[in-house]
Formats: sequence, C-alpha cells, structure tokens
Amino acid sequence: MKALIIAAGEGKRIRDVSGELPKPLTPLLGLSLIERIILSAKSAGINDFVIVLGYKGDKIREKLGDGSRYGVSIEYVENKEWKKGNGLSVLSAKNKLSENFVLLMSDHLFDPDVLRELKKKKLAGADGILVIDRKKRDYIDLEDATKVRIRDDIIVDIGKNLDEFDGIDCGIFLLSDKIFDALEESLKRGDDTLSGGVRVLAEKRKMKYMDIGNKFWIDVDTKESLKVAEKHLLDSLIKPTDGAVSKYINRKISIPISKILVNTRISPNAVSILSFLISLLSAFLFSFGQWLYIALAGLLAQISSIIDGCDGEIARLKFQESRYGAWMDSVLDRYADALVILGMIYGYWISHPDITIWIWGFFSVVGSLLNSYTAIKYDQVIKERKRKFRFGRDIRMFIIMLGGVLNQVFVTLVVLAIITNFENIRRIIVLSSKE
Amino acid sequence: MKALIIAAGEGKRIRDVSGELPKPLTPLLGLSLIERIILSAKSAGINDFVIVLGYKGDKIREKLGDGSRYGVSIEYVENKEWKKGNGLSVLSAKNKLSENFVLLMSDHLFDPDVLRELKKKKLAGADGILVIDRKKRDYIDLEDATKVRIRDDIIVDIGKNLDEFDGIDCGIFLLSDKIFDALEESLKRGDDTLSGGVRVLAEKRKMKYMDIGNKFWIDVDTKESLKVAEKHLLDSLIKPTDGAVSKYINRKISIPISKILVNTRISPNAVSILSFLISLLSAFLFSFGQWLYIALAGLLAQISSIIDGCDGEIARLKFQESRYGAWMDSVLDRYADALVILGMIYGYWISHPDITIWIWGFFSVVGSLLNSYTAIKYDQVIKERKRKFRFGRDIRMFIIMLGGVLNQVFVTLVVLAIITNFENIRRIIVLSSKE
Repeated sequence: MKALIIAAGEGKRIRDVSGELPKPLTPLLGLSLIERIILSAKSAGINDFVIVLGYKGDKIREKLGDGSRYGVSIEYVENKEWKKGNGLSVLSAKNKLSENFVLLMSDHLFDPDVLRELKKKKLAGADGILVIDRKKRDYIDLEDATKVRIRDDIIVDIGKNLDEFDGIDCGIFLLSDKIFDALEESLKRGDDTLSGGVRVLAEKRKMKYMDIGNKFWIDVDTKESLKVAEKHLLDSLIKPTDGAVSKYINRKISIPISKILVNTRISPNAVSILSFLISLLSAFLFSFGQWLYIALAGLLAQISSIIDGCDGEIARLKFQESRYGAWMDSVLDRYADALVILGMIYGYWISHPDITIWIWGFFSVVGSLLNSYTAIKYDQVIKERKRKFRFGRDIRMFIIMLGGVLNQVFVTLVVLAIITNFENIRRIIVLSSKE
Repeated sequence: MKALIIAAGEGKRIRDVSGELPKPLTPLLGLSLIERIILSAKSAGINDFVIVLGYKGDKIREKLGDGSRYGVSIEYVENKEWKKGNGLSVLSAKNKLSENFVLLMSDHLFDPDVLRELKKKKLAGADGILVIDRKKRDYIDLEDATKVRIRDDIIVDIGKNLDEFDGIDCGIFLLSDKIFDALEESLKRGDDTLSGGVRVLAEKRKMKYMDIGNKFWIDVDTKESLKVAEKHLLDSLIKPTDGAVSKYINRKISIPISKILVNTRISPNAVSILSFLISLLSAFLFSFGQWLYIALAGLLAQISSIIDGCDGEIARLKFQESRYGAWMDSVLDRYADALVILGMIYGYWISHPDITIWIWGFFSVVGSLLNSYTAIKYDQVIKERKRKFRFGRDIRMFIIMLGGVLNQVFVTLVVLAIITNFENIRRIIVLSSKE
C-alpha cells in the first residue's frame, strides 16, 4: 500500500521555529517532521510514498531524495497551486495512485500503531476511512481544527465551522481512488479543500471513521504544539518494564542526554560501547581496593547504567531500533556486570587476602548473570500483568554504586549474591505456578 | 474439529506382542498405540474424539475413560458387527459427527505434522481428503496395504488388489458427512469396507488426496512393524541442534536409558533434578582437590550431562513436553555449570593457594553462562541453516570430564575460559553480519 503525504503548504505560524526551512523540514529531536511521518509509516509497513510538494518543494526533495536513505521509495508530485486549497494537492497525485492508499499530512505526527490499525481495516463498500479523535486534549487548537459529525459508523459532515461536532479530523485517511472524483465534484461547487472532497463522500454515506482512542497524535503548526510533541516523544521513552531506579533516577538523566545526542551523528551502538567502556573503567578502579578509587568506581558504575539507557532512547527517537542492537547491548551489559564484580572482588582481596570474598563474588556474578538469563522468559510470561516492582540491572548497579561510595565492597557482594539468587529461585517458583 | 478413531478390530497378527490386550492397547515406549494416536492428534490441535469400539471394547474404555486424563474429551460408539468390514465401524459413528471430521485408525501411527497440515486443507467442493504415501518404504507390507490410483488432484480408485497404483492409503482422512451416504451406497453394492465408501466418493470425483511426503507414518499390525515404529521414535530423539558430543556419545547412552524410564512413573522434571543432584555431587568431589576424587567428579559431570538428555527424551516420547519444564531444566543446568566450576576452582586452590585459578575460574563461569545466554538468540537466527558444529553444554561438560580424569583442573579452566568467551565474541560478530 502506498502513502500520499501532503507537504505543499507554507506553514506561516511555525516560521519562528522553522526559519528559512519549509514547515515539513522543521526539526524535532533529530529528525524533521516529514522524516518522522515517513519513518512512522515505514514502521507500520508502508514502503512506497508519493509526496506532494509546493512551497519550497526543492528543499524537501533535496533532503529526502529517492527515499533510499530511509529504506523506502519516494516519488514526487508538484502542486503549482499550493497557495489554494489542499484538495488540489491531493488531486495532483491522481495519476500516481490506482489502488487504495493512505493519506497523511506532513505536519500531523501520530503513534505508528494508529496506522497499523488503520491498514488492517476494510473499506467494505465505503470509499474512505478517516481517523478521528473523540477525546478532549488540551493541546488541540479547536478553532483551527477540522471537525466531524458522525452517525453510526459513518461521517455525516466535516468542516472547520461546525457548531456541534463529535470528533476532530486527525489528518490520517485510508482512501479509494473515488476521492479524486469527489474532489473534482467539490471543485465544481467552488470548494478546493480536502474537506470539501470528504464532504462529497460523506453525503453519499461512503465515508467511515476510525476512533484514535487513547493513542497519540498532534497537528504541529505552532511553536507550542512542537513543544507538546517533543514532550510526548520524550515521555514515551520511559518503558512500562523499567525498574524503580531506572524510572525515578536513570531516565531523568538519560532522557535529557539523549535529547542532546539525537542531534549528533552518534549511533545507538556507539553509546552502548561507551557505556561498556565506562564499566571497564569502573572495574579497573574497583580493583585498586582503596576508598577514593572505589567511590569513584561506584559512581562510574551508576553513570554507565544511566548511559546504558541512552542507546535505546536514541534508537527509538530516531527509528533506529534493531533487534541485533538491543541484543548486542544486552551481551555487553552482561560482560560489564561480570567485570565490575571481578574488579570489586580483586580490589577487596588485595587488602583482605581471604578466599571468602571470592566465593561471595562468585555467587554474585552467577546470580547477576542468571537474573538476566531468567528475565528473558520471566518477562515474556509476566509482561501483560502490572508489576509493582521489577528487579533488574538498574537496581543491581545502584547497589554497587552505594557499596562503592560507602566503601562496603564485602557487604555489597554478600547482598548481591543473596538477592540475585533469591530472585532467580523466586522466578522459578512463580513461573511453575503459571504453567 | 472432532476426530473419529476406529478401534474395533481384533488385530490377530500382533497377538504375540499384545497378548490378552486388544491391539489398540499394545504398549509402545510407555504409551499404548491408541494413546499415541490421541496425543498426536491433540498436539495437532484436536480435543474431541469419538472412538468406535468392537473387540474387547470394555478394556479400551476402561483405559482411556472420558479422556480427561489426557486433557481431551472422548465419546464412545459400539460396533457390534466388528467382525465384518470396517466401513460399518465408521457408519456406527454417524450420529456423533455433523461437521467435517478427521478419521484415524487406532493402529496407524503418524508424525503429528501430517495432521497439522491436513487440518489446514479445505475440502473446496470435495467430500474428503485422504493422506497417501507415494514413496517406497521397505517396512510397508505391500500385499496387505490399501492402494490408490490418482489423477490430477483426486483419487480415482482405491483397494487392496489394484494392479497398478500411485500411492498407499495412510489411514488418515479429512471427511465431510457425505462419507456416510457413500458407505451406505457401498453397503448396497455388497461392500462393507471403508475403501468401498471411499470408492463411491472417488467415482463421483469427490475424493482428493494429500501426499505425506517425507513425514513418518506406519501401520502397526505385526511385531516387526512395532519394532520399526519403536526405532523411528527413538531415532527421532536426536535433535538437529545436538552438538557432536551429544550426538555421538550422550544420546547413545541416554536414549537406551529413556527407553527404560518411559515404562516407569518417573517424570521428566524428576530426571532434571536427578541430573542436577549428580552435578552437585561432582562439584563437591572436585572441591577435595585430590586426583581420585577429581577423576570421579569428572565422570559424574559427564554422567550428569548424559542424564540431562533423558528428561527431554522422556517428555517427547510421552507427549509431556512443556515450555516451563524445558526452561526450568535450563536454569538448573546453568547453576550446575557454575557449581561444578566453583568446585574445580576451590579444590585446586586448596593445594595451590594462588589467586590465578580464581581469575581463570571466574572467566570460565562467565563464559559458560553467557554461552547459554547468547545461544538463545543465536539458535533462533541460525536454526534454519545447517551447522557443522555447535558449541554447547555437551562439549563443555566433556572437557570438564577429560580435565578431571587427567587431573588437569587448571588447564581445563584456562581452556574453558578461552573457548567459551571466544565463542561468545564469535556469535556477536556472526550475528552482526546477519542483521
């Protein structure tokens, strides 16, 4: 299925942010708005795009090229009459679209799940489905928004000036090529907007809707709405599986760092390796066995744990997630865990040459590594249910940081050995009752 | 979908094995033939059974009950005329079957994948699909077998006495209730066999076929065919992912042990725990640090590794596989790995009180545990491709056995530390090129 993206308008209201750039190229967390639209659609399974250009179209074409940089294919259509209604932009792509297609706005950001759901819908006799929002959201400019009225499963009216309305047009459509006839009919009536065309279909009871529900969308047309979009994207980086230390401490530091790093060329894998190197340094400092070194080592372990959040955050913000990247990061984390514990054992043993520390250290490392081993299965089974508490790496590293700062290496390893292995036994028992 | 199982016949030819029991209750590796049919069908997603009883039907009913013991539901039908043709057995279940159903013979064993594939087929206008075998298999008694002739996608003739034929009837059918009319028509013609009914459908070009391909099936009606079935089931326990030590040494011992254990009440989980306890004993003996103890410890590690194969084997032979069981076994294996290495380190350290052994031992345990951690992902990605060599627990335990017998604990830990961590790095590199 192809996606048609309208990127022809001037977007005067956001000029103070976009400056000389056309609105679709307004930057947001390392990507321009239109790149976010393309990559969101790609993650929902769309690989072929038709983009309608108008105002400063050359700059957009220069930026996006043929799409190969994004792993998609892009064709362009020029709408010379971009100053008129946006219906003309849709009409200008008529020859490029023969089958059902998705229509998107270059400035309407959305959760890719919305498009995944829309793509699965069947037109079933209708000529289009429009995604609408029935919730009140305080960041929607109701005056400027396009409203719709619905009855049963269809749209009965659409426009900016409806007195009563049931929802807001989210600018995301699934359409058959009948939309082009409808736009031409609307043109004859003197209305050159996309809403005009939709109204023609609505009159024939051929326009259905899909409620966006709780999923996010936003029409970015002012500096304020850009801020709202940025805040939403950053907040969504906190995962439901995050442990307490991760949620309340690490993310509060890693997210602002990621916000800066997305604007650089630093890749998520490079950040994984940086975090690993910081752990190595922590392990090395622990091995000296003296308090100032140990305190610094503990802090570095915690810093490494924080930085370890950034790789996934940058990957998600820039649509660079890969299963290999996540896996490689997890293997590096396991080696980092082991080496930090080895550094702790060795440093303590130099000044307390008793074998006991090696045995506790041994059980700490076994328990820690098997925490991660059992988590793979445990998280699969338990993921649906809400968990109050998740024991994971964030907490282990926090304990190591405390142990380092307080100069309590022995106690730390005893505590780690006990709680990590206890947690593994607990998981074996919990899962046995789920069988 | 329901399955109809014909279990009415006398089965004279297998009497020397089954003795007083009716043929469907002939034991094979811990389960009777009819239990294998029911559990194979269950694993292909069938939960409702109708069983036609005849010769010594009470014994079968007594054994199987209402099916709840197997997690299925079983209804029974009596065919008083079981001495006559088997078409009457099918006909006697007419009132129990209103929709399409699967027809199975209580003595025709098959790979559950055959039924999974058959269930997905659509009758698409036909009244039945018969699974046929177009390969030559030396254990098929061609004289006694029912043959079929095919043209395009349908069966054109069926019977024991066809001069020319294209395949053998495997006794596995997907049928609509039209089979009952066909059986009645065949009866009028004086033929009371199931083949007679199938021939009526074949004449109307309403009987399709599905080729069983390379998948296993066997009609167990003699002592010899029972032996063939047993050999096939045992051979299938060798997994394509088995490592070299597992394939050429461990399985050769574990399979004969499992062959005995399936006839006891010992559960797969009990065997997992037994294997774990043997590892604990191995770890304990290693910790003494003297050669005879160490040699015995090495042998016990290898014995534990062999016994560790039996739990999965018994589970597969008795349809008791569970994802939890496999996972719990793998977590116990990881603890066993760690404790055996700890025993080795400690035993060596007593007589050579130098910290070096602890460091090598530390890297051995980290490498070993992370071998299993990286294998989860690695085996997923690499499973389709044929592998010449798989580095896994079987090889690690074999190295530990050699190290114990040869009294070379230090060298063993150095070797383990190097090859396990080298293998992890290799996997990271191999998978990075697969992304």
